[in-house]
Amino acid sequence: MTDHLPVFDDVLAAAARIAPHAHRTPVLRSRSLDALAGAELHFKCENFQRIGAFKFRGACNAVMALDDATAARGVVTHSSGNHGAALALAARERGIACHVVVPEGAVASKLAAIQAYGAVLHRCAPTIASREAAAAAVQADTGATLVHPYADPRVIAGQGTAALELLAEAGPLDVLIAPLGGGGLLAGSAIAGRARGGDGLALLGAEPEGAADGYESLRQGRHVTELVPDTICDGLRGTIGAPNLALLRRHRVEVLLVSDPEVVAAMRLAWERLKIIIEPSCATVLAAVLRHRGHFAGRRVGLILSGGNVDLARLPWMEPA
Amino acid sequence: MTDHLPVFDDVLAAAARIAPHAHRTPVLRSRSLDALAGAELHFKCENFQRIGAFKFRGACNAVMALDDATAARGVVTHSSGNHGAALALAARERGIACHVVVPEGAVASKLAAIQAYGAVLHRCAPTIASREAAAAAVQADTGATLVHPYADPRVIAGQGTAALELLAEAGPLDVLIAPLGGGGLLAGSAIAGRARGGDGLALLGAEPEGAADGYESLRQGRHVTELVPDTICDGLRGTIGAPNLALLRRHRVEVLLVSDPEVVAAMRLAWERLKIIIEPSCATVLAAVLRHRGHFAGRRVGLILSGGNVDLARLPWMEPA
Repeated sequence: MTDHLPVFDDVLAAAARIAPHAHRTPVLRSRSLDALAGAELHFKCENFQRIGAFKFRGACNAVMALDDATAARGVVTHSSGNHGAALALAARERGIACHVVVPEGAVASKLAAIQAYGAVLHRCAPTIASREAAAAAVQADTGATLVHPYADPRVIAGQGTAALELLAEAGPLDVLIAPLGGGGLLAGSAIAGRARGGDGLALLGAEPEGAADGYESLRQGRHVTELVPDTICDGLRGTIGAPNLALLRRHRVEVLLVSDPEVVAAMRLAWERLKIIIEPSCATVLAAVLRHRGHFAGRRVGLILSGGNVDLARLPWMEPA
Repeated sequence: MTDHLPVFDDVLAAAARIAPHAHRTPVLRSRSLDALAGAELHFKCENFQRIGAFKFRGACNAVMALDDATAARGVVTHSSGNHGAALALAARERGIACHVVVPEGAVASKLAAIQAYGAVLHRCAPTIASREAAAAAVQADTGATLVHPYADPRVIAGQGTAALELLAEAGPLDVLIAPLGGGGLLAGSAIAGRARGGDGLALLGAEPEGAADGYESLRQGRHVTELVPDTICDGLRGTIGAPNLALLRRHRVEVLLVSDPEVVAAMRLAWERLKIIIEPSCATVLAAVLRHRGHFAGRRVGLILSGGNVDLARLPWMEPA
C-alpha cells in the first residue's frame, strides 16, 4: 500500500485503467420517488456492477495498477464479502493468484462465490489480530501484494470512478450521497465530486446509527475505532479507515445517520419503485434522503447505489421482528 | 377500435407519439447469464417502464392518438392489472377521464394503484359477459372510447416500440423473444422485429404451459379460446386476441412453452444475477432461453422483460409447495 492520499488524477487514471473490465452502470430515475422525496434523484446503479457491487472498481484498479513483476506474485486480502469476490475476479482477469483470508463462520454462499472466481481461501479465527496474522503469513509465503478493502489509495481512487460517471451522465448536481462503511466509496466519491462538482456540491455520507464510527469521528475530531457495530447493514460494519477519514475532512463531507428500520423501508421502496435489487447497506442513501429532507428538498441529488447482493430467501421485511 | 392489422409505420408513429411520456428503458447485459445460456443476451428492461410494465406504451399510444373531440369523452377499459394502471396514467397525462371496469375480488393493491392515477372504478361480476356489459354501459353513458388491453391495433403498435428501441440499441439480433398472453406485446414486437431485423430474425413467444392458447392456436390452425388458464403468470392468463394471432401468423412467430417451476427459477435467477425485479409473466422469456437451448445457443438474443409488478411480501420461492 502506498501512503499518499489519492487525488483526482488518481481517479481519472483509475477510470481509464478499469474501463475494459468494469461495467459503466446506468443511472435510473423515478418520478414517484422524486415526488416522495421532493427532490430530483439520480440513482447510479452499482448493484449492476460486476460481482453485484461497486467493490469491483477499486479492486480492479488496484490489480491492474501493479507492475508485471509484482502482479506475478499475486494479491491477498481479508474480506469474506464483496471485496473478496471483487479482488478474486480482478485477479482472474489479470491472470494472477488471489488469496483471501476469511474468518471461521463466514457465510458459505459468499465463500463459494469467491472460490468460483478462482481465489484461494485461507481460514483464520474471527478476530482482527488473527486475520492480520494470516494475511501477513500469506504475504511472507508468496510475496503477494495486500489490497486492503477500503484504506488502500488505489482502491479509493477506483471507487471514485462511479461518482465520476454519475456526474458525467446526470449533469450538475447539488448533492452527492454515498454509503459510509470503511469509507472507500465515500472518500473516492468525495474526490471525484469535489473536483467535478466544485465547492457548491454538498458531499454527504449515509451511515447506520448502529455503526456510526464515521459520524462520531467527524463530530469528535478523532478517529473513533472502539464502537461495536450493530446494524442490518452488513457491508457497513467495518471501521472507517484513517486515510478515508482524512479525505472526508479534506473534502468537507458531512455524514447523516439512518436507523435500521428506515433502511429496511427504503430498501423495500427501491425494490417496489425502481424495480431493482439493492442490499441494506445500499439503501442507507435513500433512507437518508427521506429522513433528512432539509438537505435534499428541491435539489438535484446523485445517489450511489452501492450493491445488490442479498439473500433472496430471507428478506428483512419477512423476518419476525 | 379500428379494424386493420397494424403495420410498421404504426409502430414508428407510436414511437414518436409516446416519446414525451414513456421511458426509453435501458438494455442490460450479464456475463454470467450469457455463460449459463451459451448465448449473448440483451435484456430490454420494461420493468423500468412507467407503471412498472410495457403496458404504458400501448395505452399511451391509444390515448394520445385520439382526436381532441373523441378524447374529451374519455377512455374505458376492463383490466384490473397493468393495463388498467397504464390507461389511467396515460389519460391523466392527457387530462381526460378514464373508466376502468374491474371484477369483484380483484386485488385491492392493484385497484388502489389505478385509482391513484385518477381513474374511476366500475365494479362488475367476475365474468366476461358482465365485464363487457359494464364497459358497454360506461361507453353508452359517457361516449368514452374503449381501449382493449391487447387486441386494439393502437395498443399493439405501441407495444412494438420496446422492440424497436431494443433493436436500435443492441444492433442486429438473431432472435427476439417476448412473453405471450393476449398477444399485444408479442404481436407488436413481431411487427417491429420483422421490419427492422429482416427475414433472418427468429421471432419467438414464451407462453406458460398452463395458458397455452397461443401455442395451441398456431399448432391447430384455429383460434383456441376454450382453455382454462392455470399458471403463476398472472399477466399471461388472458386468451390471445384474433388480430394478435393473425399478426403472429403473418410474421412467422413461433411459440415456446415453459412450466411454472421453470418460470419461478428463471425469475429468481434474474433477481440474483441482473439485480432487477421481474414478475413471473416476465420471467417466461428467460425460462424459454434456458429450456429450449437449441433456439438460442451461440446466437445474439433480444429478450423483452415485460414488467416488474410483484407482491414483495409473497415471493413464489418462499411459498409452501
